[in-house]
Amino acid sequence: MAESFHMKSHEFRESGKRLIDWLADYYARVDQLPVLAQVKPGEIRASLPAEPPQIGVAIDTIIEQLNSKIMPGITHWQSPNFFAYFPANASEPSVLGDLISSGLGVQGMLWATSPACTEVETHVLDWLANMLALPKTFLSNSAGGGGIQDSASSASLCAILAARERATNFKSNERGCRENLVAYTSTQAHSSIEKDIRVAGIGRANLWLIDVDEQFAMRPELLEKTIEEDKRAGRIPFFVCATVGTTSSLAFDPLPAIGEICKRHNLWLHVDAAMAGTAALCSEFRYIQNGLELADSYCFDAHKWMFTNFDCTCFYVANRETLTHSLSVTPEYLRNQATESGSVFDYRDWHVPLGRRFRALKLWFVIQHYGVEGLQFHIRRHVAIAQKFLESVRKDDRFEIIAPAPLNLICFRVKGDDGLNEELLRRLNASGQLYLSHTKLNGKFTLRFCVAQMRTELHHVEHAWAAICAEATKLIAARDRGSHSNQAASGRE
Amino acid sequence: MAESFHMKSHEFRESGKRLIDWLADYYARVDQLPVLAQVKPGEIRASLPAEPPQIGVAIDTIIEQLNSKIMPGITHWQSPNFFAYFPANASEPSVLGDLISSGLGVQGMLWATSPACTEVETHVLDWLANMLALPKTFLSNSAGGGGIQDSASSASLCAILAARERATNFKSNERGCRENLVAYTSTQAHSSIEKDIRVAGIGRANLWLIDVDEQFAMRPELLEKTIEEDKRAGRIPFFVCATVGTTSSLAFDPLPAIGEICKRHNLWLHVDAAMAGTAALCSEFRYIQNGLELADSYCFDAHKWMFTNFDCTCFYVANRETLTHSLSVTPEYLRNQATESGSVFDYRDWHVPLGRRFRALKLWFVIQHYGVEGLQFHIRRHVAIAQKFLESVRKDDRFEIIAPAPLNLICFRVKGDDGLNEELLRRLNASGQLYLSHTKLNGKFTLRFCVAQMRTELHHVEHAWAAICAEATKLIAARDRGSHSNQAASGRE
Repeated sequence: MAESFHMKSHEFRESGKRLIDWLADYYARVDQLPVLAQVKPGEIRASLPAEPPQIGVAIDTIIEQLNSKIMPGITHWQSPNFFAYFPANASEPSVLGDLISSGLGVQGMLWATSPACTEVETHVLDWLANMLALPKTFLSNSAGGGGIQDSASSASLCAILAARERATNFKSNERGCRENLVAYTSTQAHSSIEKDIRVAGIGRANLWLIDVDEQFAMRPELLEKTIEEDKRAGRIPFFVCATVGTTSSLAFDPLPAIGEICKRHNLWLHVDAAMAGTAALCSEFRYIQNGLELADSYCFDAHKWMFTNFDCTCFYVANRETLTHSLSVTPEYLRNQATESGSVFDYRDWHVPLGRRFRALKLWFVIQHYGVEGLQFHIRRHVAIAQKFLESVRKDDRFEIIAPAPLNLICFRVKGDDGLNEELLRRLNASGQLYLSHTKLNGKFTLRFCVAQMRTELHHVEHAWAAICAEATKLIAARDRGSHSNQAASGRE
Repeated sequence: MAESFHMKSHEFRESGKRLIDWLADYYARVDQLPVLAQVKPGEIRASLPAEPPQIGVAIDTIIEQLNSKIMPGITHWQSPNFFAYFPANASEPSVLGDLISSGLGVQGMLWATSPACTEVETHVLDWLANMLALPKTFLSNSAGGGGIQDSASSASLCAILAARERATNFKSNERGCRENLVAYTSTQAHSSIEKDIRVAGIGRANLWLIDVDEQFAMRPELLEKTIEEDKRAGRIPFFVCATVGTTSSLAFDPLPAIGEICKRHNLWLHVDAAMAGTAALCSEFRYIQNGLELADSYCFDAHKWMFTNFDCTCFYVANRETLTHSLSVTPEYLRNQATESGSVFDYRDWHVPLGRRFRALKLWFVIQHYGVEGLQFHIRRHVAIAQKFLESVRKDDRFEIIAPAPLNLICFRVKGDDGLNEELLRRLNASGQLYLSHTKLNGKFTLRFCVAQMRTELHHVEHAWAAICAEATKLIAARDRGSHSNQAASGRE
């Protein structure tokens, strides 16, 4: 190349190696960093130059700015002290697989635009289906198969679109969605189901949130009753989303009963196992997906508990033709012999975007590096640590446990009012020592403690528990003083 | 850490550096590889082990399999001989920025979940808006702003959803889309507009494809006539997508006229500049976006011509509240002080997925490395090379040029029947020397030659032209022999 502003080969080699070391150094000290970024709104932007550089700068400058201006605004999802939400693990093998994906920069919209991108994806998703003992209907040698999406939100949208088409005799794409379609999920389902139902033009008012039992699992008898009422009223029930491990409390909807109801009434059953699905790598946890053979579609996020960096939602359907029929539009400029032969998957027909990167590569790196046994080891390890934490909470009668916790998410609170628990959460997160998040269960403000970060060891959890106890002690003492002196027991000192 | 299947720090450092060298070596020889993968359907899968490894394997094995089993199925989008579709450039700085994004593994769904992820994105999209001289309405200090999406398909879906809500007085999310909404785009618009209209529950039958002029640009007088007819018929015109650089031929819809019509009839105007938008980095090409100040939303793909690896669609809106109002659903577990203060952007409300990675980092690396001048240099270089190619085609009277080519896409064909041109394309791509794609214009099979791959130099294009001429010479000779001997002039020897 003649004159060029491109990065030269030796510069890429040197810079790339520096950044690999930068990441390794980061991982070595991430447990020491305040988990939650301690910045105020606008602080990061204010530190950045108002104008972009006219003339490019050296990698030294870029790295210096990364360290000084960007890192202070990072919340450390890779910290072993991250117990909030669900994790977003970026294991080293996944980062390396993703590096190759970034670098090759292939587009896998059609089989023809990079055959390996499609075939490795189909292959690895078949591997995974077997590793998790998913129903055979989801394998690519059946009428079904799996593909990767960016998120469970997008996967459930595609399930809804395929269900919408099936329920309208494949007319909703053509004419718009005018039928009185009705969808169902539980009060505990992820908010993305509501969002997707809106996006698909069905309307939130046509999504019933079915009540749950004392374990926060959908009550199937209420589901069936509602479906029957809707049918009598001339509405068209078409879709149920059941959850394997809800976001609030990791509740498990009863798939066998829900699946039977869906079969009986001819509804599409989508199963969302975003975080918990990975547990099925271990035979002793596979009970969570009993009944999955009744589902039309299924997804779980390898980018949560399976050590594969975002984005990597694994989405399976039992009938891929219904899906692709719902999502395929082929202009002339995308026509090609392989597609017309019918012998290939074109994954652009499995989701909304046309472009798609080679995401299977990072999953392939992860499975190759850990092996099935390595992944099982960590799932079991996390569940065991979480159960020890559960035991500590249970033994301390200042606390109450709000939901069943058979796996790795503990929902608990200090006995007392919401204000005290809100303040406890605020102080713990502000301390930088750990990061946890909250939900509301039975109307009560509840702390969520999820053990699934790849670096989390027992001692991190013990340390977190000590910090929780210490802050709770202070807050309870303040409350008791406050109530003695007749002040409002708001939990604020 | 005690016993662990995790990759050890020194192993990550060594493997990472090997893979950086692997990529550098790849870039050094990518011009020598057959651009289009020369494999048959199923060939890559057949080479992969049927079962995943129970026990993890060493990085040596992973790299060996990458080389021997996966690379044969790669179509080389990073080759300087890639002239097909639109490019998907993965420049070295973008790959390095993306490496940090993968490695940090932060989630930017809320400002609170990693403030830098949100603030750097807003900041860099403001930078970009100024670099491209976009209307001030798209800056974050106005009522608008920009965010990153995975693809132009997803961005236009969000534009349609916001437009749908606005046109229904914010009722379509709640009640479903029952109104007789009608959308408009040109016959040359990207297929994603049709897909999005289906997804949104509006129905393909309610999308009018407005006819184009001899330059393949939308005819605004036909647009207005159709809108008026629809209004008289009681339908509700709500959305127009205009294209700045169509996929087929890089045609430019007349934004000023279309924008005036949209204002007059109160329609949402979305402008899709997926590939061509980047040209506006150079003042002499900014005429392509004249009239953009009339648009409600705009997108272009930094992952095409702006050297930033996929995915990186930059999506701007003039009124961010309409967008977020259309896409926001907030369950308890996502509530936080920063959101409730109203002082931050929560980008999950700008698109369908909840999770989102730190994509602004790669864009930030690209802008920092190249500087504005470096990026301008390459845009001008590509246009100049493309114009030389155009001149070569024009001078050869065996060929005809099918569409105006003011920038970097040349649409041309051999004078003669479609069969000959199809066979020409097939042979050129099978040769491995170059990769180009096709479209149909005025009903004729037409070759598309796009000059936008970052490594493409004049000599690659000259070599491509020589290869095209050589194959055309053979095919024309065969046709002429064939017609002399009264055989079907199918172009097949």
